[in-house]
Amino acid sequence: MEVTRTNFKDSLNTVYSAIEEADFLAIDGEFSGISDGPNVSALTNGLDTPEERYMKLKKHSMDFLLFQFGLCTFTYDQAESKYVIKTFNFYIFPKPFNRTSPDTKFICQSSSIDFLASQGFDFNKVFRHGIPYLNQEEEVQLREQYEERRSQSNGSGNPSYISPNSNKGPGSIPEEHREYIGRVVEKVESLFTTSEKTVDLEPCTGFQRKLIYQTLNSKFPKGLHVETLETEKKERYIQISKVDDEERKRRERQKQEREQEELNDAVGFSRVIHAISKSGKLVVGHNMLLDVMHTIHQFYCVLPEDLNDFKEVTQCVFPRLLDTKLMATTQPFKELINITSLAELQKQLKESPFKSPKVVTAEGFPSYDTAQEQLHEAGYDAYITGLCFISMANYLGTFLTPPRAHIPSQSKLIQPFVNKLFLMRIIDIPYLNISGPDLQPKRDHVLYVTFPKEWKTSDLYQLFSAFGNIQVSWIDDTSAFVSLSQTDQVQIAINTSRYAESYRIQTYAEYVQGRQQVRESQGHSTQSWDEDGWVKPHYTSPSTVGAGPTGYSYGHSRPSLGKRCVSPIQEEQPTDGEAQRSHADGWSAYTHSHTHSDTGSKKIRTDGAETTSSLFDVPEVW
Amino acid sequence: MEVTRTNFKDSLNTVYSAIEEADFLAIDGEFSGISDGPNVSALTNGLDTPEERYMKLKKHSMDFLLFQFGLCTFTYDQAESKYVIKTFNFYIFPKPFNRTSPDTKFICQSSSIDFLASQGFDFNKVFRHGIPYLNQEEEVQLREQYEERRSQSNGSGNPSYISPNSNKGPGSIPEEHREYIGRVVEKVESLFTTSEKTVDLEPCTGFQRKLIYQTLNSKFPKGLHVETLETEKKERYIQISKVDDEERKRRERQKQEREQEELNDAVGFSRVIHAISKSGKLVVGHNMLLDVMHTIHQFYCVLPEDLNDFKEVTQCVFPRLLDTKLMATTQPFKELINITSLAELQKQLKESPFKSPKVVTAEGFPSYDTAQEQLHEAGYDAYITGLCFISMANYLGTFLTPPRAHIPSQSKLIQPFVNKLFLMRIIDIPYLNISGPDLQPKRDHVLYVTFPKEWKTSDLYQLFSAFGNIQVSWIDDTSAFVSLSQTDQVQIAINTSRYAESYRIQTYAEYVQGRQQVRESQGHSTQSWDEDGWVKPHYTSPSTVGAGPTGYSYGHSRPSLGKRCVSPIQEEQPTDGEAQRSHADGWSAYTHSHTHSDTGSKKIRTDGAETTSSLFDVPEVW
Repeated sequence: MEVTRTNFKDSLNTVYSAIEEADFLAIDGEFSGISDGPNVSALTNGLDTPEERYMKLKKHSMDFLLFQFGLCTFTYDQAESKYVIKTFNFYIFPKPFNRTSPDTKFICQSSSIDFLASQGFDFNKVFRHGIPYLNQEEEVQLREQYEERRSQSNGSGNPSYISPNSNKGPGSIPEEHREYIGRVVEKVESLFTTSEKTVDLEPCTGFQRKLIYQTLNSKFPKGLHVETLETEKKERYIQISKVDDEERKRRERQKQEREQEELNDAVGFSRVIHAISKSGKLVVGHNMLLDVMHTIHQFYCVLPEDLNDFKEVTQCVFPRLLDTKLMATTQPFKELINITSLAELQKQLKESPFKSPKVVTAEGFPSYDTAQEQLHEAGYDAYITGLCFISMANYLGTFLTPPRAHIPSQSKLIQPFVNKLFLMRIIDIPYLNISGPDLQPKRDHVLYVTFPKEWKTSDLYQLFSAFGNIQVSWIDDTSAFVSLSQTDQVQIAINTSRYAESYRIQTYAEYVQGRQQVRESQGHSTQSWDEDGWVKPHYTSPSTVGAGPTGYSYGHSRPSLGKRCVSPIQEEQPTDGEAQRSHADGWSAYTHSHTHSDTGSKKIRTDGAETTSSLFDVPEVW
Repeated sequence: MEVTRTNFKDSLNTVYSAIEEADFLAIDGEFSGISDGPNVSALTNGLDTPEERYMKLKKHSMDFLLFQFGLCTFTYDQAESKYVIKTFNFYIFPKPFNRTSPDTKFICQSSSIDFLASQGFDFNKVFRHGIPYLNQEEEVQLREQYEERRSQSNGSGNPSYISPNSNKGPGSIPEEHREYIGRVVEKVESLFTTSEKTVDLEPCTGFQRKLIYQTLNSKFPKGLHVETLETEKKERYIQISKVDDEERKRRERQKQEREQEELNDAVGFSRVIHAISKSGKLVVGHNMLLDVMHTIHQFYCVLPEDLNDFKEVTQCVFPRLLDTKLMATTQPFKELINITSLAELQKQLKESPFKSPKVVTAEGFPSYDTAQEQLHEAGYDAYITGLCFISMANYLGTFLTPPRAHIPSQSKLIQPFVNKLFLMRIIDIPYLNISGPDLQPKRDHVLYVTFPKEWKTSDLYQLFSAFGNIQVSWIDDTSAFVSLSQTDQVQIAINTSRYAESYRIQTYAEYVQGRQQVRESQGHSTQSWDEDGWVKPHYTSPSTVGAGPTGYSYGHSRPSLGKRCVSPIQEEQPTDGEAQRSHADGWSAYTHSHTHSDTGSKKIRTDGAETTSSLFDVPEVW
């Protein structure tokens, strides 16, 4: 269903109960742009470190607006062996709710807007009827504003600042306002002698209102209800009503309720994200790093500078994430699936060996026709993402003995993919590991090359034509990483470049060192290279290591397994398979069974029941 | 009429002829926001200098998009004594036209978007159907791109950069491409032996296409037409056709025409602005500084750093501008018109002593109903602005002897208002003078005060409560200008502040000096104070002084008039009327006649005929 400002309040309970009853949730966001700096190919260098990629996305992507949020809730109906879905398509816009509220500025990127326009995106729905939102800091500020106003009207106003005349009791009314305040007091006194119950003052300044509140609270501590209202022209004025104690309390209560409702309205769409967060349910997305970053940035807080802090925040907001693009590019799916764009993935998952799941739309919800593609509507994309997840999860069930047709989202078979977000176009680091340190591959076959800005890729190919296949990853106009196929060519390349004038070659290690010197001078910590080529993780904060919501944990010491140890990321390592960190988790089984499928032991024997025991209880028989 | 990408090309001649036949043009723009930095009240400090205001608007307003441009052309029908109007409402969006075209990013400000949404603005029309545009630099770049591609396909490609292997003749095909190019040559050779006329190659890389062009041009200098086309999937491939010489030339010509048309399409809406500019007609706007800045910025060039350079550019693009807000706030209108917002101005100009002009909509154009306000649609606002101009211009005609009901836009009565753009909320400088140096009022009653960020306006009022009326102009959180009513209070204020710890007071002169020291260290020129309080203008570039397209000129030396010399800006001076610069133009008559209306000499006698003689030919009898 479509949710705009118009029907948001009426839909909220429907949204809450859909989240509450769901087995898992799929989400998708549409943004007003991708990069306000370099073009996307420069933004996603093939040899970015996770820190670099995070910093680039934070710097160049967060000023765009997430203006459509798709949520599809999936609830498994055991009796009927089918999923029941509810799809929501939220239109989001930071409409300022009053004159002191934040006036958000956001960037639009023409190519993104043009693309959405070509897909029939309804911008009028966003800008005219989008649901407002506040992040947590803004919510707190607004709450404090209400409280301050309340305490001011209670006479307990206590300005916290030092002003040239800080004695601000009712006695210290500035000379020029005394006559005015005197007239107000007269008006109020005459209120007690007439049958009139209410007097409306003329609109006046905030300072005058403050003086009036202070004076009336001091002179008439009971028997009055004083309230600031707005005229149609948005001018503020004070209304003073004669009330008995009970009436006064009733009005205070009413006012507080009204304020609470205003506050809720202002928090707006953020309440949906809070509900998703609180549910702790598995949240599935496709290539979801930007969705996660935008969601946190827009509805929780400005993103932290440090990647590890971002991981902590992410774990708080989304305790369990699953990225279907990462899943599809990992064993056992990698070899079955060629193209992992959402549309192509969905097509391939309709074919053998995969099965389309049985899914029905809940009553009262409009249903999508997957034959009629409505891609790039966030709700539809979330729906398709959920379908892809189910197909892939259920495929994992075929490896069990006996095979199981339905793999629930809590299954430990899913666990290896949890909290790993796909990293676009990084050659040797397939994912950002939200619940632990990131993979840090050796890059000693990589050269850092600087050259005149006229050079093109073909010039680099020519320069390195003696070295066979190379891979070029542009950094900017005048620099690129060049990955050689053989590490021992590195020294030759550097030697031959020594007398070149137009270009310059460094090893990746030299490049990193140069940048680290810059970072160290800025107070960042350093990293050291482990002897087998992985940088020793320096990040050992107990709050993210071993503290995953499901008990899933990374060991910091590599198990000394003699055999090729397997992990969901293994196949992504382009060079050596020997020296890499391991997740000692049940997932190994898949690659194992694949590489040994000729032995006939294709299925994993289990007791057929999924337990909640730790994943480190490795099954006895593999 | 509404003009979008869909009907732009078909409407262009209609637009051109409307501009050509018009007596004057009225314009208005709608933007995606106003300020991406300080809020509008901080953006418009009451004591900004014109330079400061320009720099602030340039810095904080130019990243918004002008996405609706209203043009209303007014043509006077002498026979029927009425204006015939044509209104155009252009929707504008920088849709990228190909993959190498600029991918414009622009900012949206929520409050502005929300305001336009509340007025029923159609964002879908902008984003789905907006007309693209290029500024002049982009146009040149695109033209060069086309030319380079053409010269490349002519075999005269001559890469201008230094590459590691700069010998790029057809002989230097890199090893790994030789086989591929060899196969292409075979294919082409076989084309000459069959009845096939055309061969389509597989899509290939840009580098390969370059090699193919070079090789074929060298091997088959005649008899072939080689062209790069795109598949439906936007992959580029080469089509090679066997042609005789005539056919070859015909195709080249066709291609050039197609390219010229593509170029025109890309330049898009900028062509309308070019036509307005070339026409040299009077362009009328209401509070039009931002409209002018945006128009130049978006369709001509990035705005220059220096205000005087901006004035030069503006005079090139819009040789004759008139701002109805400046006109309405100047004598003789100032005392007749209270509120000068466009809607209010229009209402007041319907009442006596003004007359609503007789205006009809040209055949085939949809007409506006002024009773049914459609304010904030750019076309409608332009139309209303034009009406206001006519009413005010014709009112000037009542001062002539004999009175004239119709004052044409070329009249010298209009001249005093030309090229002076209203400056929002500046206390003592009413306008930006596009065709000369700006007014520089004495500000020796002004204090520059710095204080803790908790201070509010009321704290400043209290601090200066001993000095009677003051005027506060906020600069930022911790500083403001405070204008005292008496200049001789300045020293007292400074003396009493000497031992204050929480705040600090400087004279305006000290403040300016401090800032000039900063600017001088940045290489800016300095200004000196004239003895009567006006800063001597240091700007004497012959290109803007006395070089107005209409012969209108500022004198740099003040005429030593003993009497209170009048100018359109005089009444805007809050303090002294003695020491100010004068425009020795005919305009003086109005204020003159007003201040001496009791003498009965209300009308100016002229010969009743408007001549093109210089305005400095002051009429003999006043």
